[in-house]
Amino acid sequence: MLAIHTITTKPLPLSAAVEAYAARGVGGISVWADALGDLSPQAAGELIRAAGLEVVSYVRGGFFAHADPAARQQAIRDNLQLMEQAAALGAPLLVLVCGADPRQPLAVSRDQIRAGIEALLPRAEALGLRLGIEPLHPMYADTRSAISTLAQANDLAEALASPWVGVVIDVYHLWWDPDLEAQIRRCGTRGHLFAYHVCDWKVPTRDMLLDRGLIGEGCIPLRQIGQWVAEAGFTGYTEVEIFSQHYWAQDQHQFLDQIVVAMAQLRA
Amino acid sequence: MLAIHTITTKPLPLSAAVEAYAARGVGGISVWADALGDLSPQAAGELIRAAGLEVVSYVRGGFFAHADPAARQQAIRDNLQLMEQAAALGAPLLVLVCGADPRQPLAVSRDQIRAGIEALLPRAEALGLRLGIEPLHPMYADTRSAISTLAQANDLAEALASPWVGVVIDVYHLWWDPDLEAQIRRCGTRGHLFAYHVCDWKVPTRDMLLDRGLIGEGCIPLRQIGQWVAEAGFTGYTEVEIFSQHYWAQDQHQFLDQIVVAMAQLRA
Repeated sequence: MLAIHTITTKPLPLSAAVEAYAARGVGGISVWADALGDLSPQAAGELIRAAGLEVVSYVRGGFFAHADPAARQQAIRDNLQLMEQAAALGAPLLVLVCGADPRQPLAVSRDQIRAGIEALLPRAEALGLRLGIEPLHPMYADTRSAISTLAQANDLAEALASPWVGVVIDVYHLWWDPDLEAQIRRCGTRGHLFAYHVCDWKVPTRDMLLDRGLIGEGCIPLRQIGQWVAEAGFTGYTEVEIFSQHYWAQDQHQFLDQIVVAMAQLRA
Repeated sequence: MLAIHTITTKPLPLSAAVEAYAARGVGGISVWADALGDLSPQAAGELIRAAGLEVVSYVRGGFFAHADPAARQQAIRDNLQLMEQAAALGAPLLVLVCGADPRQPLAVSRDQIRAGIEALLPRAEALGLRLGIEPLHPMYADTRSAISTLAQANDLAEALASPWVGVVIDVYHLWWDPDLEAQIRRCGTRGHLFAYHVCDWKVPTRDMLLDRGLIGEGCIPLRQIGQWVAEAGFTGYTEVEIFSQHYWAQDQHQFLDQIVVAMAQLRA
């Protein structure tokens, strides 16, 4: 089952994205907060479901790590608000980019991340909303995430021991890890594999953030990782999440056609 | 003991670099192959020792992983030649950037790396030359190194089980790793900690290759990692290795002054 993140087609307003995804048989959509525009989360959810699409996740909460205690409290308030929006949208999952503060040791940021997620658990349970810890590539360990590997995300999810906390696997962040197969199996076994994001790693990569590749144009072993994810028991959507100034500059309908073809080739 | 890599002051010819390092009390130099210019390795070694400096390493061999078998054989020949140059230079160590080929799985590249190093062992022993496996940051896993963590480098060094094979720790590549302290202790215990490279990770980092920071201007916990390296029994040089278009564009003598001051502050 194919889903697409709104950020992938960032130039399209949500209504146009929904229409374009549905027209191509895409079954799911993950909604970035900035894609809501003037729509309320509830209205956006109705628009999406009216087009026959399923909301897969709301993106993205997190950023719990701050040297300043007031900023940590603010982050928790921000996440609680995002959780209400996710619930109003009808999203079963809020994706967490956990954060890091370069002014303090990574171990301190990790403790703050754990405390931050813990503070959200009662509301997550009340809303019936899952929280997905997404480990980010080590090149983002300075400011975006002190959780850099799936092993760390699994450790954290297991330590929190809540049915509402699991992990999000994004191939872009994790493809290099020699421990990946074992860690995918581990989160599958524990029931913690909440979501699966795909794109590709371009050779060369010209920008650390906004040069992700279309499925198949890079060096990520997508078939192999997809097989490990399937063997781990994951039956959810495969979500295409591409941040790319190159693709955003192109016709988004042609880009969507390319995505649909590339995903069909991947599954062939 | 402070050493500097010639690449750090890339605009300086070797003779000027040697003079400038010696004038500032720098005790060691790691020589990049391209720094030799018209000098033979032997002449370069004599120049360096005449200035009272010690050659710490020759940089860099490796790049063993290629989908094409002829390219793998060529890589071994190239490394054997670099080893002769290292010996003629009087370097006790050749640093290995192990390579990766995006056209094949990382596991295949890793097997080729192991086979490549194995092919060099008889000559390393005959020359009395150490080979240092340097794990590179995961953001270089596409084309530069399929060895991304110190755990992988330690595994490989232990599997090769030669007194001539060990690891090179560069903080830039490894600072994010939650397993770093344990892996530094491990290679220290095994006698495999051959070299220690420092620089810093700038926030933000604007280029994936050529935007390394001066010691202290980034977020790498240099004191903490330096302490782990010392506790692991390492008594060699701390080598400053900074690739930076920003610093290369500046007066290299002022830049060297900044390095010396920054290293003194780090040790204060």
